[in-house]
Amino acid sequence: MAENTEKTPLVGIIMGSKSDLPVMEGCTAELERLGVPYELVIASAHRTPDKVHEWAETAADRGIKVIVAAAGKAAHLGGVVAAFTPLPVVGVPMKTSDLGGMDSLLSMVQMPSGVPVACVAINGAKNAAIYATQILGATMPEYREAIVNLKNEMAQA
Amino acid sequence: MAENTEKTPLVGIIMGSKSDLPVMEGCTAELERLGVPYELVIASAHRTPDKVHEWAETAADRGIKVIVAAAGKAAHLGGVVAAFTPLPVVGVPMKTSDLGGMDSLLSMVQMPSGVPVACVAINGAKNAAIYATQILGATMPEYREAIVNLKNEMAQA
Amino acid sequence: MAENTEKTPLVGIIMGSKSDLPVMEGCTAELERLGVPYELVIASAHRTPDKVHEWAETAADRGIKVIVAAAGKAAHLGGVVAAFTPLPVVGVPMKTSDLGGMDSLLSMVQMPSGVPVACVAINGAKNAAIYATQILGATMPEYREAIVNLKNEMAQA
Amino acid sequence: MAENTEKTPLVGIIMGSKSDLPVMEGCTAELERLGVPYELVIASAHRTPDKVHEWAETAADRGIKVIVAAAGKAAHLGGVVAAFTPLPVVGVPMKTSDLGGMDSLLSMVQMPSGVPVACVAINGAKNAAIYATQILGATMPEYREAIVNLKNEMAQA
Amino acid sequence: MAENTEKTPLVGIIMGSKSDLPVMEGCTAELERLGVPYELVIASAHRTPDKVHEWAETAADRGIKVIVAAAGKAAHLGGVVAAFTPLPVVGVPMKTSDLGGMDSLLSMVQMPSGVPVACVAINGAKNAAIYATQILGATMPEYREAIVNLKNEMAQA
Amino acid sequence: MAENTEKTPLVGIIMGSKSDLPVMEGCTAELERLGVPYELVIASAHRTPDKVHEWAETAADRGIKVIVAAAGKAAHLGGVVAAFTPLPVVGVPMKTSDLGGMDSLLSMVQMPSGVPVACVAINGAKNAAIYATQILGATMPEYREAIVNLKNEMAQA
Amino acid sequence: MAENTEKTPLVGIIMGSKSDLPVMEGCTAELERLGVPYELVIASAHRTPDKVHEWAETAADRGIKVIVAAAGKAAHLGGVVAAFTPLPVVGVPMKTSDLGGMDSLLSMVQMPSGVPVACVAINGAKNAAIYATQILGATMPEYREAIVNLKNEMAQA
Amino acid sequence: MAENTEKTPLVGIIMGSKSDLPVMEGCTAELERLGVPYELVIASAHRTPDKVHEWAETAADRGIKVIVAAAGKAAHLGGVVAAFTPLPVVGVPMKTSDLGGMDSLLSMVQMPSGVPVACVAINGAKNAAIYATQILGATMPEYREAIVNLKNEMAQA
Repeated sequence: MAENTEKTPLVGIIMGSKSDLPVMEGCTAELERLGVPYELVIASAHRTPDKVHEWAETAADRGIKVIVAAAGKAAHLGGVVAAFTPLPVVGVPMKTSDLGGMDSLLSMVQMPSGVPVACVAINGAKNAAIYATQILGATMPEYREAIVNLKNEMAQA
Repeated sequence: MAENTEKTPLVGIIMGSKSDLPVMEGCTAELERLGVPYELVIASAHRTPDKVHEWAETAADRGIKVIVAAAGKAAHLGGVVAAFTPLPVVGVPMKTSDLGGMDSLLSMVQMPSGVPVACVAINGAKNAAIYATQILGATMPEYREAIVNLKNEMAQA
Repeated sequence: MAENTEKTPLVGIIMGSKSDLPVMEGCTAELERLGVPYELVIASAHRTPDKVHEWAETAADRGIKVIVAAAGKAAHLGGVVAAFTPLPVVGVPMKTSDLGGMDSLLSMVQMPSGVPVACVAINGAKNAAIYATQILGATMPEYREAIVNLKNEMAQA
Repeated sequence: MAENTEKTPLVGIIMGSKSDLPVMEGCTAELERLGVPYELVIASAHRTPDKVHEWAETAADRGIKVIVAAAGKAAHLGGVVAAFTPLPVVGVPMKTSDLGGMDSLLSMVQMPSGVPVACVAINGAKNAAIYATQILGATMPEYREAIVNLKNEMAQA
Repeated sequence: MAENTEKTPLVGIIMGSKSDLPVMEGCTAELERLGVPYELVIASAHRTPDKVHEWAETAADRGIKVIVAAAGKAAHLGGVVAAFTPLPVVGVPMKTSDLGGMDSLLSMVQMPSGVPVACVAINGAKNAAIYATQILGATMPEYREAIVNLKNEMAQA
Repeated sequence: MAENTEKTPLVGIIMGSKSDLPVMEGCTAELERLGVPYELVIASAHRTPDKVHEWAETAADRGIKVIVAAAGKAAHLGGVVAAFTPLPVVGVPMKTSDLGGMDSLLSMVQMPSGVPVACVAINGAKNAAIYATQILGATMPEYREAIVNLKNEMAQA
Repeated sequence: MAENTEKTPLVGIIMGSKSDLPVMEGCTAELERLGVPYELVIASAHRTPDKVHEWAETAADRGIKVIVAAAGKAAHLGGVVAAFTPLPVVGVPMKTSDLGGMDSLLSMVQMPSGVPVACVAINGAKNAAIYATQILGATMPEYREAIVNLKNEMAQA
Repeated sequence: MAENTEKTPLVGIIMGSKSDLPVMEGCTAELERLGVPYELVIASAHRTPDKVHEWAETAADRGIKVIVAAAGKAAHLGGVVAAFTPLPVVGVPMKTSDLGGMDSLLSMVQMPSGVPVACVAINGAKNAAIYATQILGATMPEYREAIVNLKNEMAQA
């Protein structure tokens, strides 16, 4: 993790509530395994909107290339971030205790025309890490290689 | 309507897309019937977030007492407005062509703790007008009376 | 709470069953924190309809400005109350053990034209308290201020 | 139909809105075919609650043995009627344009303990007539016979 | 209970599996409280279809007036029984561990034209007992009275 | 088709209503294209249960190897047939106008332990034909070959 | 079990993850009870696609007559296998912790035209075994007899 | 478009059926507007799996950086492609006539751990184009600029 934090973060992780952290540790663990430096912030689209806006608006200039946004229920966080950045936003809809996460999923994935958020599965924290790395790997060879290695490992498991 | 627009608007209606207007005319028509002055703006939480924020942040100071927010799909508009105003926000989830509006409903109603949006039915434009008037009528006698009259008319219909 | 009960209640809370009480204590606790006097009654729209009607019909005259109605399953309580009062009714759909509260939500939010109930999230007891206070704050400065303070606290949390 | 209306009605049909009538004519047509006298009223649980209550409370004394209640969306009509009568209430959840009638169905069928409404299928107007006749036929031989005949006809169709 | 079993049963309860019994004891307990004699059988529409058919076909001749059928998942039991008897069938959709009982509910309530099953709520065993008694009470004064008493007790609870 | 009807039918198609026929012609057309002889009957599990039972009980003795059962809403037909035959039953849940066929699907696929029905997609008439042929092809070389040819044609389309 | 593994397997069971094994032991246990030799492999359509393809492409030549495929969430395994074999594929959608298995079910059952997978119930492992045996029994007398015996046992249970 | 096709394609679009083309023209039109060269292929994961595999396995070597996969019903195409490429796959779940696209959405988004597909909204063809461009823009300045310009245009519309 030290290695990760010494480098400029390439992935910015934002989540709506401290309670999302245990699930989202599946994301940070996978990013570390894949050697991708990241930063992480907890901020609510509704309770601390200005914090979210500032973080989103400045992300590209800080060197962030991909954003992972995790939120539950009426999960607006991904969309709010996407409104303020040209970067691709990967949404992680959190499982909810009443509707199983169907509310989070629809609130994230059904974005209207012009401002997409692309979602992974409900509670898909690890896959969000892999997907963010695939986005980096689209043009950066070392991350492409990390994904190729991951696929090889899975194929042998 | 002239009468309405000469007075300071008490209800602010915001909708995410021009395509919501035909349904939301059920809201403006009812407000006019109930004698409630309103203003109306079309602005997207995602495509024009700054416009939404400014409108929401200044609504209370302009004299608006209640906000009606209509949006479809991943309908964040109500929640985004609610993040920037102390006023009560009435959400109108718009019917969608694929999921019937279930996506809009869950995206609006399932707001996380601290920042509520209270929703009426899918495409419930007229009821949003009545509810906004009930909110005014909670403390303003002329609007209480307008609701009482409406109820009497319905009882005799 | 003493302070609350000495004042005339402004919010009337009604719930369909004693079993809703543990969740709805999230509502009363928040109202107390916001300094809003309230009254609370348990009455079923189906088992004790006359008690509900009388309570609803007299609420406005007792000085109540907003009603919070919580019920589960085929959750008619909000609609039944709304039929008998000109006051705004905030619905709290209770989580159910089989369908997660989807039944409660649809039974409350999908009110037909003319008699709205505006719903907060499933089990959204705390948000119902905040919303009721926002309704009061639409025209009563001390409650507007309570909401502004709440938002400031959340922004700093 | 003349024959039906000359006799004391045994089935009371109530529906929430005039717009339910085209579907519910499937119910009246079947009752006529089965020779069951009925009465029909249009009254809304929310817009004209007093009319509903009075109709429901006096139904048994007027000689009604079974009630058929049809309503859509947050379909409280069946439950409201059931609260005011000891008679069995057969619910007909109406198809809705956005959620297909799932809202009507859950609002009717998920009645809490103590006050049942038994539902037939969405838009199941004809089946409500047959079911009401089966209830009569439980103890009245001529209606038992009408059902037996209906079953024989179906078996030969 | 002795009193119940000495009389000719008026309600026939059938359930698809022994595992439904703990829930359905809510039905038998309520019938006993209401003084309604009943019989109970466990038989599967799919594993023991002949047993179900014979039981259903002979129910009316044994003096049964109403049938309560409880089943889960693809819950055909109510419909299969209804195909073989002119008696009214009250369906009790059982809660399921994966879909919460939505499968049981739709399999029971959405009966096609001609052969209705009227359903109470998911796991609504007690309400099925009350409804069966209401059906008896449609024409039998002692059961009408039992329901009136029950309503009075609930109103005073 | 003549060729088909001269041979002993190997697939028995049963559907609940004449209204299912236009969709199910996708099944018969595909069976003919694959050279599989079939028979077809329209019979309702609820309106004509004895006809269904007799057809199902005698199917194996008539030389039928696979049954295709199509039905909509509370679609019990597949399960009822499966209760009376040792043959494999392929269920085709019909699309419904209110719930899109979700009711038909759950009523067919969620069969309880011991008596399976295996379902293809909603309105999947053509796939039911292919699947029935795959079942024949499990042990009969000419039908295995028909499937292999079909796959080759698709791969070249 | 020894008896089973000495014979050439007739049923090939494939599952997407080791975590599906406890549920799928309901399938192997039933196959053993019915005397059907089987083989079992764990391979993921996504993590080890080549392993799946090779297994599926060679299944028929190894003497397999029926395939049972179990997977959860976006459950592609059945469809991927079906693309590479002319054999009938029985899908077992696994229960999921968030959506109860509705995702698995729709991902398996809603196969597009040309390549069917026929599904049993969510977690329907035992029924998949019975269904696979019914497919064998379509033309192989000893498995027909095993099913007839099973039905007789159930009828006497 | 000429300009697009002269350059090496950066986005590879694959769709399961020719019938998806009218919707997916929203994707190609937007890519052209954003100046992103692309290639397009129609191939089914189930009917022409080898074509899909070869296309997916060679995409990265052809210079493709991002894949857009559109499919309906049991929409496996995105997952099948993702299994054979290290590139990020953007899924477009197609609206379906029976379940509105809920089946397509869950089949695409609920990918198991290790092999993500990130989904945009049902029928979200235009947003898939924007998202693919955002992925390119993560590291390629000209596409970052195209997105920034798009956002500016939307803000002024």
